[in-house]
Amino acid sequence: SGEMAKLPPLLDNEAFRAYATYATIVLLKMMLMSLVTAYFRITRKAFANPEDTASFGKAENAKKYLRTDPDVERVRRGHLNDLENIVPFLGIGLLYALSGPELSTALLHFRIFAGARTLHTFAYLIPLPQPSRGLSWAVGYSVTISMAYKVLKTALYL
Amino acid sequence: SGEMAKLPPLLDNEAFRAYATYATIVLLKMMLMSLVTAYFRITRKAFANPEDTASFGKAENAKKYLRTDPDVERVRRGHLNDLENIVPFLGIGLLYALSGPELSTALLHFRIFAGARTLHTFAYLIPLPQPSRGLSWAVGYSVTISMAYKVLKTALYL
Amino acid sequence: SGEMAKLPPLLDNEAFRAYATYATIVLLKMMLMSLVTAYFRITRKAFANPEDTASFGKAENAKKYLRTDPDVERVRRGHLNDLENIVPFLGIGLLYALSGPELSTALLHFRIFAGARTLHTFAYLIPLPQPSRGLSWAVGYSVTISMAYKVLKTALYL
Repeated sequence: SGEMAKLPPLLDNEAFRAYATYATIVLLKMMLMSLVTAYFRITRKAFANPEDTASFGKAENAKKYLRTDPDVERVRRGHLNDLENIVPFLGIGLLYALSGPELSTALLHFRIFAGARTLHTFAYLIPLPQPSRGLSWAVGYSVTISMAYKVLKTALYL
Repeated sequence: SGEMAKLPPLLDNEAFRAYATYATIVLLKMMLMSLVTAYFRITRKAFANPEDTASFGKAENAKKYLRTDPDVERVRRGHLNDLENIVPFLGIGLLYALSGPELSTALLHFRIFAGARTLHTFAYLIPLPQPSRGLSWAVGYSVTISMAYKVLKTALYL
Repeated sequence: SGEMAKLPPLLDNEAFRAYATYATIVLLKMMLMSLVTAYFRITRKAFANPEDTASFGKAENAKKYLRTDPDVERVRRGHLNDLENIVPFLGIGLLYALSGPELSTALLHFRIFAGARTLHTFAYLIPLPQPSRGLSWAVGYSVTISMAYKVLKTALYL
């Protein structure tokens, strides 16, 4: 369409399309954590806000559902860990995709990151014995460092 | 200016300009949560760090202000919920704006998201009875999913 | 390379290269907080997950390491503050770099932000007496507001 023509051909570039695909996938995976949290809050009846427990009846009765639950807290830690690791991937990955990487190298970075973060979520939620979670975290972290190195090598302007 | 000429004409594209506008607005709204937190910490005298209470006098007296307060915690939950939902909007919305959407469709997505997140903040801070907060959260979430679908349809490269 | 040629010349633009450099630096700084958290969790023996304490022996013995520690919590607050402030910088800074700023003005914004966030981390972790942390936070916050003003002035499309 005419609209498309005015855009820079970012999405014609295969490395950028790969970035768009994997960035969207890991963000959707992160968004899923909100639904998992809601699921555990409802099934465990463990809420953070008085207004969330109003449907359980009178104030005195509802108050006991204002509590923390180990399963809810576990999902929330996994969600926060996603934020801490997916935000750097989003920012550094975007710049990396714009730095002219080899397509195969870029795909390798994006695929490993998405795989490692998916494993991290399973390791956190099941939970799997350590060092499953630690290793999957470290793999995603290392991929981001590797992309940051390429960005700084290509773009450095202090 | 000459500087501008070398840039890709991203900001000549109306859908991208709309993204730039609404992304900036929701980020400024999120940043406002820091000021609201500071306001409640100071008025409720509820701090997280010993060095923040030093102005209240001797260590023994100041120590009692190292505490959590329901109003402060409520704002902090709202702030974290912003992070969890605005980060996906930023990343997916950027890719969506680059995917050549119809301008009117893009504006619809961005406006609904910004409106829903503003409502979410009011619903959290006042607080409004449920399902106000739940619904405004779900609307913003759905807008992001809709944009993610368009990005993957346009750019998918696994 | 041929791959590079198809990309828009974003990284030929000096203001965008400066953004790429400083965005990567502040994200790497934020990522460092994960390592500092891990360091304090291990040296203070304060963990959040039962599976993380399994190497300390039998369940009953290991259970006592499932606890919060003031040093760990301090690093985690610093990490969350980074997320709350670096996410707006990433998003607004990207749009600012695309809005055709004077190179020297852009560099000034990026350098001050990176410096202020580095100071904020030292002020939080050492910790330095207030208002060190408060001021370094406010400087980074103000830089982001200034960039947001330029973005909205250049791109506003509601």
